[in-house]
Amino acid sequence: MRIILIGFGNLGKGLARIFVDKADFLRKTYGLVPHVVAVADERGAAMDENGLNLSKLLKVAEKKSVAAYEGGKRGKMALEVIEDMEADVVYELTPTNIKNGEPGFTHIKRAMLTGKHVITSNKGPLVVAFGELDSLARKCGVEFRYSASVGGAIPVINLARRLLAGNEIREVCGVLNGTTNYILTRMSTEGVPFEIVLREAQELGIAEKDPTLDIRGIDTACKITILANSILGIDAKLEHVKVTGIDRISSEAIRLAREAGQTIKLVGVARRGSLEVGPRLVPFGHPLAVGGTLNAVKFELDLAREITITGFGAGPQETSSSLLGDLIDIHRTLGG
Amino acid sequence: MRIILIGFGNLGKGLARIFVDKADFLRKTYGLVPHVVAVADERGAAMDENGLNLSKLLKVAEKKSVAAYEGGKRGKMALEVIEDMEADVVYELTPTNIKNGEPGFTHIKRAMLTGKHVITSNKGPLVVAFGELDSLARKCGVEFRYSASVGGAIPVINLARRLLAGNEIREVCGVLNGTTNYILTRMSTEGVPFEIVLREAQELGIAEKDPTLDIRGIDTACKITILANSILGIDAKLEHVKVTGIDRISSEAIRLAREAGQTIKLVGVARRGSLEVGPRLVPFGHPLAVGGTLNAVKFELDLAREITITGFGAGPQETSSSLLGDLIDIHRTLGG
Repeated sequence: MRIILIGFGNLGKGLARIFVDKADFLRKTYGLVPHVVAVADERGAAMDENGLNLSKLLKVAEKKSVAAYEGGKRGKMALEVIEDMEADVVYELTPTNIKNGEPGFTHIKRAMLTGKHVITSNKGPLVVAFGELDSLARKCGVEFRYSASVGGAIPVINLARRLLAGNEIREVCGVLNGTTNYILTRMSTEGVPFEIVLREAQELGIAEKDPTLDIRGIDTACKITILANSILGIDAKLEHVKVTGIDRISSEAIRLAREAGQTIKLVGVARRGSLEVGPRLVPFGHPLAVGGTLNAVKFELDLAREITITGFGAGPQETSSSLLGDLIDIHRTLGG
Repeated sequence: MRIILIGFGNLGKGLARIFVDKADFLRKTYGLVPHVVAVADERGAAMDENGLNLSKLLKVAEKKSVAAYEGGKRGKMALEVIEDMEADVVYELTPTNIKNGEPGFTHIKRAMLTGKHVITSNKGPLVVAFGELDSLARKCGVEFRYSASVGGAIPVINLARRLLAGNEIREVCGVLNGTTNYILTRMSTEGVPFEIVLREAQELGIAEKDPTLDIRGIDTACKITILANSILGIDAKLEHVKVTGIDRISSEAIRLAREAGQTIKLVGVARRGSLEVGPRLVPFGHPLAVGGTLNAVKFELDLAREITITGFGAGPQETSSSLLGDLIDIHRTLGG
């Protein structure tokens, strides 16, 4: 399978590393040989129609742009690569931009229009134009997969679409942001105030320097938008979600909750007619009462009543589990 | 799709009711029309090659054997029905017998040998002869599905086999018995002793009159055996599982655990070289710390690290979710 990687940050590098480490396993188990024919980062691209040497490329990329790889080109941009190279699958792994979805939005469209399947972790294009991309994929006869955009390693979307067939899904709700869950868990177990836990989380690399998108609930709202579209079939956009963050939650509120056998979680809820994100009381023993950086997603169903799935919602290796799962699935379904 | 139901207790009736209630949904969503051509219980059978009227049959079965349905026959009919009726799928829904797997074992073999796909919830044949049935299904070119045998409504086996592709599964562990989980949860939250909670659970119908298989951990050991075979590819039998029950757990032990932020759960663990069932300390906030009658199954994986899925592990309606899911999947894969 010929593959183009667009974006070569932690996620792209993590995936390339797994292609190297799991080459034997993938060939033996699925007959899948991932030939990465091009990789583009923000400064240039490396290309080889016979397949790049990924170990070499990862070495180069430790210090420089992938353009420094033998035969690579500075200034050769993602769109050119997508158009010029023959490939089966484009991985779109550039950072999320929730304003207009760019540059991922254009990358994905170009890939589809040139007949390539698309796998992405990028929430931007999905919250801006889910319906448009979904239709375009059908029109172009290509697969469009975005398992890694919600829940990191957790196969949320495929679980709902494939394994819960026969059920009517009435509601999806979840703890969908590891940073805020880490903060709330430490506030609850250790009684430390919000600002102090946040600062420590930033020092540990669990929270970003600018943590606004996480603690204000925007990241969770993006994921709820994607779940509403992909699982409930609601034509939702980010602005339809009513959002409250966790930045005003006091240690006192958390202590009182704890004394009552409860914990406070940032929960996103999607059901027909209502998309919401905000802090919610969750009793200990409830499936959403997961601690640390874990995520959890709960489905309300007519037959099974409720199914919850939990796991790590972030991290390059964990997210690669979903990125690789999408590739294996396309390979199984379509061959190649 | 022509269907034979063998066994018409709560589970068989629940499934028949869902075929009636979801007829429109199944036809519109999946193009699936389930024609139940025969139903056998322990006293007789009802047959109609054009499809039984399930609403009528359910009425009859409220008080009598299905043999009382128009044109039905008295007697031990299951094997005859499997042989004589043309059908695509046999549902084997008789009670679990862990000694020799009968009568389910023979029913399943006969169904396969006459070219019929098999869907079952029956743990007996699976713990007695998983490998033999798996091979026979391949030899006969039929599908063999048993999602409902572990975890009730939770799609444990398909999650592992399909959605976690690309991962190496290192360990599967879980809270796999709702009765014991209910007892342990109430002992923990209310401080009530084992014997009293057990008696109340029996009055509520959550525990059986003879609760031995549940509280001694045998039911959990059956499920661990099935997971070891189906997910880890270990050729395991029930007698390979080291089992300790929950009948000796004191209120004092549970109180001490609770004071240390922990709870006690009956946990089954399967990994290469070790199959075990026994009480384990689980911290609050851990994905296995689910309360009430919930079940939870956790996978340890090389990429995703850990994924846990929780839901209701018993109940006719909940289990029908898995029984129906298997049928839809066979229909999607093979048509018919």
